[in-house]
Amino acid sequence: MPRTTQLAAAVCQAGGLGSVPAGMLDPAGLETELSALEALTDRPYNVNFFCHQTPPHDPARIETWHRLLAPYFAEFGVDPAQIPGEATRQPFDATMAEVLERHRPALISFHFGLPTPDLLQRARATGARIASSATTLEEGLWLQEHGVDLVIAQGLEAGGHRGIFLSEDLTTQLGTFALLPQLVAALDVPVVAAGGIADAQGVAAAQALGAAGVQLGTAYLLCPESRTNALHRAALKSTRARHTALTTVFSGRPARGILNRLMRELGPLPDGVPEFPLAGNAIAALRAKTERLELDHCTPLWAGQNASGCREVPAAELTRELAAGWRS
Amino acid sequence: MPRTTQLAAAVCQAGGLGSVPAGMLDPAGLETELSALEALTDRPYNVNFFCHQTPPHDPARIETWHRLLAPYFAEFGVDPAQIPGEATRQPFDATMAEVLERHRPALISFHFGLPTPDLLQRARATGARIASSATTLEEGLWLQEHGVDLVIAQGLEAGGHRGIFLSEDLTTQLGTFALLPQLVAALDVPVVAAGGIADAQGVAAAQALGAAGVQLGTAYLLCPESRTNALHRAALKSTRARHTALTTVFSGRPARGILNRLMRELGPLPDGVPEFPLAGNAIAALRAKTERLELDHCTPLWAGQNASGCREVPAAELTRELAAGWRS
Repeated sequence: MPRTTQLAAAVCQAGGLGSVPAGMLDPAGLETELSALEALTDRPYNVNFFCHQTPPHDPARIETWHRLLAPYFAEFGVDPAQIPGEATRQPFDATMAEVLERHRPALISFHFGLPTPDLLQRARATGARIASSATTLEEGLWLQEHGVDLVIAQGLEAGGHRGIFLSEDLTTQLGTFALLPQLVAALDVPVVAAGGIADAQGVAAAQALGAAGVQLGTAYLLCPESRTNALHRAALKSTRARHTALTTVFSGRPARGILNRLMRELGPLPDGVPEFPLAGNAIAALRAKTERLELDHCTPLWAGQNASGCREVPAAELTRELAAGWRS
Repeated sequence: MPRTTQLAAAVCQAGGLGSVPAGMLDPAGLETELSALEALTDRPYNVNFFCHQTPPHDPARIETWHRLLAPYFAEFGVDPAQIPGEATRQPFDATMAEVLERHRPALISFHFGLPTPDLLQRARATGARIASSATTLEEGLWLQEHGVDLVIAQGLEAGGHRGIFLSEDLTTQLGTFALLPQLVAALDVPVVAAGGIADAQGVAAAQALGAAGVQLGTAYLLCPESRTNALHRAALKSTRARHTALTTVFSGRPARGILNRLMRELGPLPDGVPEFPLAGNAIAALRAKTERLELDHCTPLWAGQNASGCREVPAAELTRELAAGWRS
């Protein structure tokens, strides 16, 4: 049974809206995940997709990237000639829509904007509500105009990939305390808060700022149901978790993770990283070597700026504790 | 009568702790401000100091800086030979301590760490409580160890100068939603929240995250008592206020302001800016020319990431509205 499913199912059973991340899955993988989830819960759930444009094969940029990584290839015995050049993460497409038509999730959420109008229409026609992440006021207004049912205010504190899609300028990115209330004031659709929320007090604070709900990722990373690997768990439990940064080195798009050797040595936002998701292939090859040595030098240690809520407790227990912060 | 005094007095009279910024004053100026304030209110007030180390005169770095600014000197008719090379902003020192000994503010707050132990002792001996800003967990712990009575959690959303003092790495800077609760959990001293708070809901949210109080700057910038200049007011009232960035171009230390021409063209964090506060002399010369032309190209338009609370209402009214968000 896929681990992701266990986490999502536990959250659903505890009254939360468990989420299945589909950004790394193919349609067969998604089918497996959703079937497994539905065997564990009959509650509503969310499926999340990336909806980037797959970039063309770009040998020149890949070569630049491999030159930057050459010292690591040498140190860990990676042959760059064996690294595939094609994108491994696929955006939401018709084959994924087919899977959703069979499974009918309650909420379909997107990251990096929205898919094309026909694909969005297909997603909506499954009966699902549609959500996407806004990192600025402009993105929230754009998403509302393009028909989302709810907007996720992804504050700068949030871990993992930034949803930023109308700009590439990271100075536009707002902390949750600034982003959330401004989106709530500007939009008619409900706004869900994400970024920096770690416990029931954080849930209460988000509600005070006008959130219609909250979305947490980092807080669940140490739950036994989470598929967080051992290196990532160790980093989260250490004081290293206090220092995260936005970095493009793992995928080509800015994402927040705990500082590790690759981020420190290349700098978190170096020049010469290929377009998302093309940077990831070389990283996958390096991880295969380094993780076998129990080194997190090349592992994305995704985490938000507030890992203080990470505890090794069952996801259902954590969900109920968080829900206690919400005044109904 | 100095304008700053009017703002601080109005806040005090409405039950807040009005603050006098002393970073740009000399002892005579501070004496004038505090005497004027005490003529308007007998309530407790706060005086805030910068406590940087004044850097040595550094002709080589100044030359690099002037080369970067050369196109603006040419465009606006500034003669760089006429720009003074010495620091104009003075850190807290014995002459300032003397003024405080006469006036006895309730709270003395510092930015960029703390002054030397003997000066800190002198400040404390006036009977004042001592506060300083923390931008990371490490800074909060350091300040507590060094004897502050309260710590101001300055979230990344905050406008003006970052208080950062243990590091120069801006990736260490946390949003309020992440910084505040982690400081509250780690420290024994009370923690005051700053950054992104714009209205009574923001005050309630900060309290939910464990704040012992809140500090707002941006929200007061349009109050009639505020000495915010006309160019700054116009920017705050426009949609430009949605996009701020941390920049070193105005002083040499990172500070948050609304994007203007200098920040856009040089980049907000260019190489070659001299040490704080030496960058400011050339900026002052440029401002003298550009502001006369009603251009904000070279004006620091300090603002936090949430200017939605800026309204042209008396400071007392704003203070009472904000206080309504606090549950006692």
